[in-house]
Amino acid sequence: MNTSKTQVAIIGAGPSGLLLGQLLAKHGIDNVILERVSGDYVLGRIRAGILEQGFVDLVREAGVAERMDREGHVHDGVELSINDKRYRIDLKELTGGKTVMCYGQTEITADLMHARKDAGLVTEYEVSDVQPHDVKSDNPYITYTKNGETHRLDCDYIAGCDGFHGVSRQTIPETERKEFERVYPFGWLGLLADTPPVHKELIYAKTDRGFALASQRSDTRSRYYLQVPLTDKVEDWSDERFWEELKTRLPRDVASDLITGPSIEKSIAPLRSFVCEPMQYGRLFLVGDAAHIVPPTGAKGLNLAASDVATLYKILQRVYKEGDTDCIGQYSEIALRRVWNGERFSWWMSNMLHNYDDEIQSNGVEGETFKRFMESELDYYVNSEAGRRVIAEQYVGLPYEELR
Amino acid sequence: MNTSKTQVAIIGAGPSGLLLGQLLAKHGIDNVILERVSGDYVLGRIRAGILEQGFVDLVREAGVAERMDREGHVHDGVELSINDKRYRIDLKELTGGKTVMCYGQTEITADLMHARKDAGLVTEYEVSDVQPHDVKSDNPYITYTKNGETHRLDCDYIAGCDGFHGVSRQTIPETERKEFERVYPFGWLGLLADTPPVHKELIYAKTDRGFALASQRSDTRSRYYLQVPLTDKVEDWSDERFWEELKTRLPRDVASDLITGPSIEKSIAPLRSFVCEPMQYGRLFLVGDAAHIVPPTGAKGLNLAASDVATLYKILQRVYKEGDTDCIGQYSEIALRRVWNGERFSWWMSNMLHNYDDEIQSNGVEGETFKRFMESELDYYVNSEAGRRVIAEQYVGLPYEELR
Repeated sequence: MNTSKTQVAIIGAGPSGLLLGQLLAKHGIDNVILERVSGDYVLGRIRAGILEQGFVDLVREAGVAERMDREGHVHDGVELSINDKRYRIDLKELTGGKTVMCYGQTEITADLMHARKDAGLVTEYEVSDVQPHDVKSDNPYITYTKNGETHRLDCDYIAGCDGFHGVSRQTIPETERKEFERVYPFGWLGLLADTPPVHKELIYAKTDRGFALASQRSDTRSRYYLQVPLTDKVEDWSDERFWEELKTRLPRDVASDLITGPSIEKSIAPLRSFVCEPMQYGRLFLVGDAAHIVPPTGAKGLNLAASDVATLYKILQRVYKEGDTDCIGQYSEIALRRVWNGERFSWWMSNMLHNYDDEIQSNGVEGETFKRFMESELDYYVNSEAGRRVIAEQYVGLPYEELR
Repeated sequence: MNTSKTQVAIIGAGPSGLLLGQLLAKHGIDNVILERVSGDYVLGRIRAGILEQGFVDLVREAGVAERMDREGHVHDGVELSINDKRYRIDLKELTGGKTVMCYGQTEITADLMHARKDAGLVTEYEVSDVQPHDVKSDNPYITYTKNGETHRLDCDYIAGCDGFHGVSRQTIPETERKEFERVYPFGWLGLLADTPPVHKELIYAKTDRGFALASQRSDTRSRYYLQVPLTDKVEDWSDERFWEELKTRLPRDVASDLITGPSIEKSIAPLRSFVCEPMQYGRLFLVGDAAHIVPPTGAKGLNLAASDVATLYKILQRVYKEGDTDCIGQYSEIALRRVWNGERFSWWMSNMLHNYDDEIQSNGVEGETFKRFMESELDYYVNSEAGRRVIAEQYVGLPYEELR
């Protein structure tokens, strides 16, 4: 068996694993990342594109913000529409100056990968059979296979950044964790195209035909989504059908500006709310999707991963700088408080903006009543300044909590 | 058959019927009220005690505010508590000066009854078999029985202020109305006592043992509520047991100030959200509980009735002053918009503050997830100024909408 040693073993080379590794390295904390797939495969994933201020600050702190600051677009606002009526949420004004950054997750990941390579930090790609051991002891380690050989990586701490299907969460015995879940009765059909975005800011559109989102990655790359039944398949949706349906869901005066083009990528994703409690087990910390999933309405997925990273980074700094190991017990509580806020916000935005008619029918009169509540809710929140402020301050992201 | 005639026939001599009658009379619009029970019986009902600014203004406009303004207490704030932690919602500061008036529904009703009597306006108490007829025609009328004799009251319009169980809503054919409902899996056990209120403002208390509300009617009369299972009976709750349980649910530093005493009244009420659409059918208008019921969390029941009165009053003024009968078609739409806002607010406050454990168990993991969402929701709203403003502006009451 090949053995090696590091201070923090990170499972998963997605953006949260890479960001954590970069931040730790800046403070001289040695770390190794283990990743199941190849770097190119990681970069091929199409994901979120809206970064909260806290995330942006963290990327800057990691020293990897140069291209993001040059190419990313600061968005001062976001729009919600109800059929053809548009409501702008002026994020900047409503939050006293906070904004979000539009910059693709793929780009952030690429920047972090390059920075990690330049710094000579170790990432082991295409490893299999990753298995944490003895995480409740003071001497945890991970075994994995690479090129047919078994390896052992000894470490002080393990950061599980390996997503919803990763091994990290499963390492916590079932009797020691509790899982929360809401599966939504529809999916999002996403289409990526090299066309200019239809509007300079994002538009979250509620219509009688279902929800749509006009998002973007850059001045020349658009990302659009349609709420579709879970029974639909990508093959059911030609590019032409997608664009036609999108036009009916965007507010009329926006739809008339839509520039269409061939899709680069098209896929259907289910929507899920999921939380695992606790997020820590001995010396193993769950980060991001390994512990929680949100529906994308509200753009919180990557941003919640970032706040986990921020909390774990502060804890590990204190551990290695001050020798205070008691503080690791704060991780789960601090991370979960913000996670639940983001989960709730994403659930709430989903509730207000989607068409739940199928589910409502099976819930009878209480379902119909819930539908009216949600219509009234959206009507109230977009028309009240206090309501818009509630949306805005959560959309830009609640403040990161400090350690005690 | 005894026949008589009026301009507006009002069914129900509760506070909304009386208030409407008084307002119409002030503008020379003749009206007659028909009431199933006696005046004393109406006054014996223990109901709400928190009046929105809009209601207060309406009572003043009706010229019946003298005692309310003398004896009622203006509340600048309201408290929410989570176990022992207290959060004050500063209504006045958060809404730019709006407040609520603490003055019992029974008192308002008494004041309106006296004013009506003094003005020589007709109220027929203890009538039975009340039945509206021909409400879709230009000549509606009501038949009823009094002292064994059948009466017919011809009128231009009928205001159905006869509550949830009244005949007015049933007059709209089932095929022409749609009813929305949510029945809650618990009730409120209320206790009225001649003891000084435990706190100068209301306290809505969420605890692991269930919800409690510390309310009041005056400096010397308290009204307290406990969330109880629907299977409980009043006989299960001695005064002693009530006070003991209340002490465990109020924040500790408040509970220590609780002065107990013998109950004057004690009863269990179920909680229900209910809306009937439309609220108008021909020349029949539904007002208040006849069209909608809210759970009492949020103190909206009487206040929504008042906003119906305000809308109907404006419409009937225009009808009789300007001869514009087209405007009556606006009633349902305008009234329902505010009703749904109040319904949603009451449902939302109920969701955040009560213990739904019984229902949650039957909903499995989605139920548990909803519970965490509600915990996060309350935590966010009381700790965010924007969140507190959202609570405050709805608690004092959204503005009344003008006619088009």
